[in-house]
Amino acid sequence: MTEPVDLDPEDWEAFRAESHRALDSMIDYLRGLRSRPVWTAPTEEAKARFNRELPAEGRAFPAVLEDFDRYIKPFATGNIHPMFMGWVQGAGTPVGMIAEMLAAGMNSNCGGRNHIAIDVERQIARWMAEAFGFPRDASGIFVTGASMANFLSLLVARDQAYGDRDVRLNGLCAQSGQLIAYASREAHNCVRQAMELAGLGARHLRLIPSDDNRRMKVSALRHAIAADRAAGFRPFLVVGTAGTVDAGAVDPLDRLADVAHTEDMWFHVDGAFGALAALSPKLKPLVKGLERADSIAFDFHKWLHVPYDAGFFLVRDPKAHKRAFAADAAYLSRAPRGLAVGDTWPCDLGADLSRGFRALKTWMTIETFGTKKLAACMEQCCRMAKRLENWIETSENFVMRAPVALNIVCFGVRGDDDGSLAREIVMELHERGEAAPSLTILDGVPAIRAAIINHRTHEEDIDAMTLFLEAALRRARKEPHDFGALVEPHGPGKTRLSED
Amino acid sequence: MTEPVDLDPEDWEAFRAESHRALDSMIDYLRGLRSRPVWTAPTEEAKARFNRELPAEGRAFPAVLEDFDRYIKPFATGNIHPMFMGWVQGAGTPVGMIAEMLAAGMNSNCGGRNHIAIDVERQIARWMAEAFGFPRDASGIFVTGASMANFLSLLVARDQAYGDRDVRLNGLCAQSGQLIAYASREAHNCVRQAMELAGLGARHLRLIPSDDNRRMKVSALRHAIAADRAAGFRPFLVVGTAGTVDAGAVDPLDRLADVAHTEDMWFHVDGAFGALAALSPKLKPLVKGLERADSIAFDFHKWLHVPYDAGFFLVRDPKAHKRAFAADAAYLSRAPRGLAVGDTWPCDLGADLSRGFRALKTWMTIETFGTKKLAACMEQCCRMAKRLENWIETSENFVMRAPVALNIVCFGVRGDDDGSLAREIVMELHERGEAAPSLTILDGVPAIRAAIINHRTHEEDIDAMTLFLEAALRRARKEPHDFGALVEPHGPGKTRLSED
Repeated sequence: MTEPVDLDPEDWEAFRAESHRALDSMIDYLRGLRSRPVWTAPTEEAKARFNRELPAEGRAFPAVLEDFDRYIKPFATGNIHPMFMGWVQGAGTPVGMIAEMLAAGMNSNCGGRNHIAIDVERQIARWMAEAFGFPRDASGIFVTGASMANFLSLLVARDQAYGDRDVRLNGLCAQSGQLIAYASREAHNCVRQAMELAGLGARHLRLIPSDDNRRMKVSALRHAIAADRAAGFRPFLVVGTAGTVDAGAVDPLDRLADVAHTEDMWFHVDGAFGALAALSPKLKPLVKGLERADSIAFDFHKWLHVPYDAGFFLVRDPKAHKRAFAADAAYLSRAPRGLAVGDTWPCDLGADLSRGFRALKTWMTIETFGTKKLAACMEQCCRMAKRLENWIETSENFVMRAPVALNIVCFGVRGDDDGSLAREIVMELHERGEAAPSLTILDGVPAIRAAIINHRTHEEDIDAMTLFLEAALRRARKEPHDFGALVEPHGPGKTRLSED
Repeated sequence: MTEPVDLDPEDWEAFRAESHRALDSMIDYLRGLRSRPVWTAPTEEAKARFNRELPAEGRAFPAVLEDFDRYIKPFATGNIHPMFMGWVQGAGTPVGMIAEMLAAGMNSNCGGRNHIAIDVERQIARWMAEAFGFPRDASGIFVTGASMANFLSLLVARDQAYGDRDVRLNGLCAQSGQLIAYASREAHNCVRQAMELAGLGARHLRLIPSDDNRRMKVSALRHAIAADRAAGFRPFLVVGTAGTVDAGAVDPLDRLADVAHTEDMWFHVDGAFGALAALSPKLKPLVKGLERADSIAFDFHKWLHVPYDAGFFLVRDPKAHKRAFAADAAYLSRAPRGLAVGDTWPCDLGADLSRGFRALKTWMTIETFGTKKLAACMEQCCRMAKRLENWIETSENFVMRAPVALNIVCFGVRGDDDGSLAREIVMELHERGEAAPSLTILDGVPAIRAAIINHRTHEEDIDAMTLFLEAALRRARKEPHDFGALVEPHGPGKTRLSED
């Protein structure tokens, strides 16, 4: 006779007290964001904590929580901080944190079957169909992020091009004609990756030139399609981008839709962060044409601040969507009654069978804030980008490197032809924990990139950014400076800019 | 001048109180599991709650939490309940719930860069290398689940077969020879799906016959490879299964490794739940040969009870792993200092760029419980499966349908040749909320499948299961019954078996 064992607390009330302390600590952490550096490099001591042997013996939960407080929490990415302006990462919300706890407590697997998490996910699909002007029965599914959603779109478009399930059975090489996809040269690398994953080959993605505003040139697209048809290739997919990764540009979606539909091609939009601009009446005109896409990829964890990860893939035609993924398997068989009831399950619409309850944190975010407030935050980001752009345009030292379409400001240092000062400034800002813009490369030269996507980034933060930039530039140029006046620019109890 | 807006609480202390109530409610929910039905079908009222228009106006957070309590929580999948025995779904733990909250609070994007979440993920990879007898520098990455991990393995094997990055650039059809993969006919459908996604085609996966224990026949594998070579195909991948989905069988991994390596093929193991048996000294011999795999796919959210989702992909050769996915993109450029420092980032090892902090809940689970206790829970599951098997073998009414290799018991009703009674019983058990086995199809006939993977499933639950089964059978046969004695078999305050 062996004693029964399980992983529930031996002392529930002790566990309750410990959990409440953990919750309080995280609430304090979120509340105190502004008083801390945006980023602190993980110390050697912290890194060493995660270089141990696999433990045979467990430890008391409070000791594990203490390790979290000491070795993990202080060395976060920083994307929740108002001075984080890098890489288009969402900021999260306290509401999302609680939602994720509730989802983890329920621990639903959202691959399929008859439980409410599936209905919540369908609600999100219907809401997004509404937001983007798709038919109400449009088909949607949560995935990790836009990289995965863009890959799925390519598969649906591939199967649509071949007309039945033959390509799933026989593979690409049994089909006639090499498929060719088209995106602007500003498109995200994941579009190229999708071609690689699907076995189509990156060289069969044509990267179409963009105009001065970094939007795809529609005439060039038309020419490329014609040339490919003449060469015996099969054009099948146009990928428009709503919010390019480097500069936030939006392709001329309406005109791309015209081309794709005239040419009998699938029109997909990678709207990783930009698609959600459709929630704002003010910003919506910028993404006009989105409503004509065959499918859209986007992330709730970017401009909707749902905690990571929560990507979404929306498809106009539910039949085309299901055809690319649904499968028969004995353990997935549907029953007329009970838990295994159902027609279309999420596993029929994508590559995952194990899936967390991403819909809950998204649903709670939208229910709690409503689209008006969420839109107001997006609009604010665009205003903050304008504010930074305005400052740069009047600055003696800095210069814009790309137009601001939405919320991304790419700029550099005047006369810094090789971008070395830009690089130095970005690294300095990170290391000092003052601000976290990212670095990108525009037309071959490193540029500073401030992606203002954080709902917490207010005017005071933009103004602090300009001061930090000036100071960093002077340090990089080894010019004398006196920043005594800049102490504590945006929060009590913390000297954000120190002399060095 | 527009007022600044953000998504933080206007009243932090009110939010704190609301969050603590939500936490208490979830702790009570977990503590009270046994007194509730394993599953309750979502009501029409609950479903209707998720058929509303996209809300422009937000609502108070407590009202949203109330909706959660009323319309979501009661209609969960049930996999956290001790009487859930379907579909190999993990049960979660209270510790994992808190870990997920902390991860959502930090809201790290684990695609790359220099922050501690990346180090925690690397710790998990090193731990798993240790657990599976891989070299210490083996390469690993979190994904949603084993479906995705198996797909990634196929891509790494594909690129290995072609020897350089040419297939990524030029696609499959530019390569010489159709690649062929091999798995047993008991293999999970996601292996076939991986062939479809990658463009290789499902028909180029050979499903090798299995023996009476549902293990791949090695001689048949050898013959199939020889026949394919003779026909001009290119055998490139052997997929062994550690814990088949229907019956929990483990392929003869050692002998599969021999074949794969003799034939110069990639040897991948789909160990979705079974691979983690390696953590138990008692169960480890069952998965012997795993240490010789080139790559392993498995899920922490199954037998390690990490909250959904937390799949993992481990690769022996880090260079082969990186070659399949790493890409150059300006916005992913690495810097010598600051937040963008790094060599290999997770985005170099898979298809995701947006990635939640799955490593935290996994790390906290392993740190808190240690491998001994986690292994004890797995061993207990296997004992419980044996207990159920023993009962079936002495039962007048039920009969085993497959051997028990680990923790999965497939059985049916004597004389129920078309499986209609089995189907009826499973649906009945679900609808009454008594137990949730699943239904699968073995050799063409529906079978009841009890996958005992829940750490909370103890002897009393197995014994309750036998009583529920007998009662459900009598009802299905419309036989008279008297179950007055069976009231409240495993928990206070709830009549688990009612007359009808």
